[in-house]
Amino acid sequence: MRRTANPFPDHNLVDAAIAWVDAAVHSLDTEDVPLRTARGRVLTRDILAGHPIPSSDRAALDGFAVLANASLGASGYNPVQLPLIALVAGDALPAETDAVVPLELAEPDSQGWIEMVEAVAAGDNVEHQGAIATTGATLVPAGTRVAARHIGLLTSAGLTEVPVVRRPRVRVLVAKPKAGIWEDSNGPMTRAAVERDGGVVGECVVVERDLMAIRGALVEAGVDIVLVIGGTGPGIDDHSAAALAEAGELAVHGVALRPGETAGLGRTVSGVPVVLLPGAPAACLWSYELFAGRTIRRLGGRGPELPYRSREMITARKIVSAIGMTEICPVRCGAGDIVEPVPSFAEIGLMAAVGADGFVIVPEGSEGHPQGGRVTVYLYEGS
Amino acid sequence: MRRTANPFPDHNLVDAAIAWVDAAVHSLDTEDVPLRTARGRVLTRDILAGHPIPSSDRAALDGFAVLANASLGASGYNPVQLPLIALVAGDALPAETDAVVPLELAEPDSQGWIEMVEAVAAGDNVEHQGAIATTGATLVPAGTRVAARHIGLLTSAGLTEVPVVRRPRVRVLVAKPKAGIWEDSNGPMTRAAVERDGGVVGECVVVERDLMAIRGALVEAGVDIVLVIGGTGPGIDDHSAAALAEAGELAVHGVALRPGETAGLGRTVSGVPVVLLPGAPAACLWSYELFAGRTIRRLGGRGPELPYRSREMITARKIVSAIGMTEICPVRCGAGDIVEPVPSFAEIGLMAAVGADGFVIVPEGSEGHPQGGRVTVYLYEGS
Repeated sequence: MRRTANPFPDHNLVDAAIAWVDAAVHSLDTEDVPLRTARGRVLTRDILAGHPIPSSDRAALDGFAVLANASLGASGYNPVQLPLIALVAGDALPAETDAVVPLELAEPDSQGWIEMVEAVAAGDNVEHQGAIATTGATLVPAGTRVAARHIGLLTSAGLTEVPVVRRPRVRVLVAKPKAGIWEDSNGPMTRAAVERDGGVVGECVVVERDLMAIRGALVEAGVDIVLVIGGTGPGIDDHSAAALAEAGELAVHGVALRPGETAGLGRTVSGVPVVLLPGAPAACLWSYELFAGRTIRRLGGRGPELPYRSREMITARKIVSAIGMTEICPVRCGAGDIVEPVPSFAEIGLMAAVGADGFVIVPEGSEGHPQGGRVTVYLYEGS
Repeated sequence: MRRTANPFPDHNLVDAAIAWVDAAVHSLDTEDVPLRTARGRVLTRDILAGHPIPSSDRAALDGFAVLANASLGASGYNPVQLPLIALVAGDALPAETDAVVPLELAEPDSQGWIEMVEAVAAGDNVEHQGAIATTGATLVPAGTRVAARHIGLLTSAGLTEVPVVRRPRVRVLVAKPKAGIWEDSNGPMTRAAVERDGGVVGECVVVERDLMAIRGALVEAGVDIVLVIGGTGPGIDDHSAAALAEAGELAVHGVALRPGETAGLGRTVSGVPVVLLPGAPAACLWSYELFAGRTIRRLGGRGPELPYRSREMITARKIVSAIGMTEICPVRCGAGDIVEPVPSFAEIGLMAAVGADGFVIVPEGSEGHPQGGRVTVYLYEGS
């Protein structure tokens, strides 16, 4: 196999395509959802305390409520008897008490008294009203992605619903090749990636690889983004870009991304973003990751960056990349900070992503990295 | 508020509790699920190629199929005409052809010919049969957590189902305090954490804080793990540990973990793991994270470690911790590698987790970290 000339000599730089997404795509509107189902959603407003937390002085641990002054002078030589008022952590302090004696520091009897051999101070083991938050204080700020700890705090603060960014509804169109035995693997792969990014694939529709069919399928309403898979190239059977140009605006077509050269970006007449993903699986995956995924994450209010953790590592062998192209280079982790390149997407397609621990993105202006060079590695989960 | 003596002077070390989980809990059995719904699941077997990939020689890009020998000597002075056989990337190579000429390097005419001005070599732009995987080669190994790229590869390899570890079914019992106005926030919080860890909460049941009630609820069948929230302390209304001891085995009760001192571990007579989580929300959260979450992740075949990325950082101020206790210290990230402690769980409960960017785990043998010390910080998502 050999490398061929780029079919788009005047292709767009990856950064320009990303800038188009960032300028064109904004967070969707808000919806209220039950707090207990809100995990992973992004808050659209600061959530404020509607009352002080705690709402009254309360026991910080299990024990006995006392009036601290009454324990003054208590010692082993001079035990003090006080009324037995048992509390568990979180119970409101009864009137006429201002401290909690831990279970193990007082001896209850069966007559309704406790015996103390040590004085306590007012406020000991008490959480004061408003100590955690006063009325109107921000409990969780807008933009937070809700996790278990937020659900716990906000439930205890009395909330049952929270305002979150609506989930992006995604329409996936797969342009079916004209001939040959064909089984779509891009649709299921893309659906899984959309779900990871917080979108919902309402429909995954196979359309004929035909200008009219694709254009017709592009004008459907009720979705927040359309992904068109296949038919993005310059061939005689490639109509996705032309269909988008007719159905709205083709803003970007051809990107200096390998794999992913024939990706495109635009929007329908009604302004719904459209991402054109090449039909070759590795190119579909990477144009999804850089452009479609970013669009969906932005629509859903998440951070736009790639959803992989990154780490500085050292290359065991040189990483070669074509100058003028942003190249995704799969790598495997070795001992310590060492990382080494593995067969490329051009060589083995998606198998390169499956056999790798992560990837390095080599930008347009670089021919790669020398052996021993420092590189930023994006790591797949579990690597 | 002041710190009190530990109610469990002979408490278990956190490492011992973790070792009990690791020894007692193993991956659940396998089930076959549709590949397109397998995202996030863990494969129980190596997935092998059932046939070579590609299954035959095929075009690596859009172009024209040719017999390379017939293009010998082609040049601008001596164009060679060959039959027009258009292919798109992935099409099988027709008989009597062995190379693909990219679209832009040949000129088709309307009579069914292409004109070439440059020779090609056999194999140019061809993906050979079995180049990606031979029959029986491992496509994705057992233990892999399925992501979009695996779904793409395995769909294209003809798979429709994959064997994965069954999802842990989790029963959550919340022991309701005897008195006072009580709204459960631990149940919703724990449910969200279970879902994050791949488990399914079939039931979240409120039970009376009563020995018989808790023991009765512990023997229910059809689940893979039971979490009991509340009633774990040494108080007169605390019956969770005694109930577990009667209903099976109480292996660990009282752990040198702050927050989370009264956590417990054991199993029912039929061997189902049971984790006792304290009712104080921060203690519930952290004993979940260290013990219950680990159990659920192990049951589901995931890595047992905490599901947070970690990073070495420098403390802006000293971090103080009680010697003899593993303490969870919430921190906030500053500029660069700087991290600083924020109010503790003991001071502000769950609010400490919500206001923090992550946390440091200070082990039993340490009194904390000096200002300027290097610490491992576990970071919350988005931090």
